[in-house]
Amino acid sequence: MNIILAESDEITDKLIRLIDYRAEHIIKVLRSQVGDMVRFGIISGGRGQAEIIDLKKKYPFFVDLSIEISDLQVTVPPVDLILALPRPIMLKRILSQVTALGVGTIHLVNANRVEKSFWEASIVAENRFRPYLLQGLEQAVDTRLPRISLHRRFKPFIEDFFPTIKDRCQVSIIAHPGSQSTLQQNVERESGRVALAVGPEGGWVDYEVGKFREQGFIDCSIGKRILKVDTAVTALHARISLLLE
Amino acid sequence: MNIILAESDEITDKLIRLIDYRAEHIIKVLRSQVGDMVRFGIISGGRGQAEIIDLKKKYPFFVDLSIEISDLQVTVPPVDLILALPRPIMLKRILSQVTALGVGTIHLVNANRVEKSFWEASIVAENRFRPYLLQGLEQAVDTRLPRISLHRRFKPFIEDFFPTIKDRCQVSIIAHPGSQSTLQQNVERESGRVALAVGPEGGWVDYEVGKFREQGFIDCSIGKRILKVDTAVTALHARISLLLE
Repeated sequence: MNIILAESDEITDKLIRLIDYRAEHIIKVLRSQVGDMVRFGIISGGRGQAEIIDLKKKYPFFVDLSIEISDLQVTVPPVDLILALPRPIMLKRILSQVTALGVGTIHLVNANRVEKSFWEASIVAENRFRPYLLQGLEQAVDTRLPRISLHRRFKPFIEDFFPTIKDRCQVSIIAHPGSQSTLQQNVERESGRVALAVGPEGGWVDYEVGKFREQGFIDCSIGKRILKVDTAVTALHARISLLLE
Repeated sequence: MNIILAESDEITDKLIRLIDYRAEHIIKVLRSQVGDMVRFGIISGGRGQAEIIDLKKKYPFFVDLSIEISDLQVTVPPVDLILALPRPIMLKRILSQVTALGVGTIHLVNANRVEKSFWEASIVAENRFRPYLLQGLEQAVDTRLPRISLHRRFKPFIEDFFPTIKDRCQVSIIAHPGSQSTLQQNVERESGRVALAVGPEGGWVDYEVGKFREQGFIDCSIGKRILKVDTAVTALHARISLLLE
């Protein structure tokens, strides 16, 4: 945890009392004392510093902070991710990782090779994404939660939904091993926002690749090596970010 | 598992009988039948195809393969990794991931912020790296095991050992958040091999950064966001690979 994050409604007159894992982190990991400063941010809001004005190290422990927000800018990272729903353990890891890397919106979509049971996992069925997104923000010292959007059927997503958001991204890329095209040929500093579609283990089927192409997606490969979905997402995100810089 | 890998001494006259997790994968995941072909490679050797000439699906199960090696080329990926020893669970994940991404040699080194107990973990103390490296090869359809080299003391590593291997890499990069320099300024297609040094959670201390600089390392940042070590390694590897292409 590289920043302490809180909801705006937890704060009263620039003061907050922490009694949960955040207090524990300040006491046990940072081993802070009264008078020390910690990085502090408001979820979906500004960032700054907080001074520890009181704390109790033994149960029931607490930490009282006095907050000074200095950086009000919240920026939307220039990559949106369209991800074939992975198995829950992989999904949790990817949510934290791409939130740490920076992502605008994450569209979780169905695909031919997505197992139906993945949609019934509690994280998906009960919308329990938030803790994994917060982990990513706390890691990367950010405050902006990515948006998450669920699409349980592929065809309505690509034919009906995607056209309504198409204009948000100047370039749309579908990761597809074996493609002759590369990211270097299609993404550059002037590209603005990029939509990146990453398939399930085993890849998109031809029908899906065709549908993405109909919507203007360009299929790109990052080499012959087959990567796990989490590694592929990070590697693709890193390459696209470099090309956008 | 995207390729079945075997040691050369498991093969007799182009034939092999599998009775372990590889046979299980062919029977239960691939659901192959006699006559089907599977991708096959020899560890540290060539790649090709194998035909299933016999199999038994019930315990004690086995799969008999007839092997045809067609691709004898074994290439050494152009990145070497110098990694401050991470905690065991993180180390296992990174070993598989960078092996899948492709890495020449992995130097596991001590650093000020490496916990001493990490060196006593069984994977390190008993040199049990191989299963994680094989997972990476099986994922990426490769046969070349990365070399692993252990350096329990930082100063002898950087002052005495590193100079002996320095000439293997044309560019040496130390990942260091906050640095003004970028990978784009230092790595290009003509760079040849790159040595990449990635620190522990919390980063390298100033003394270590100074020692790397003395050996010609250039410190580069990939932005303000703080990443977990496994995410950082993949993101740095992806950016360097793109610049080398």
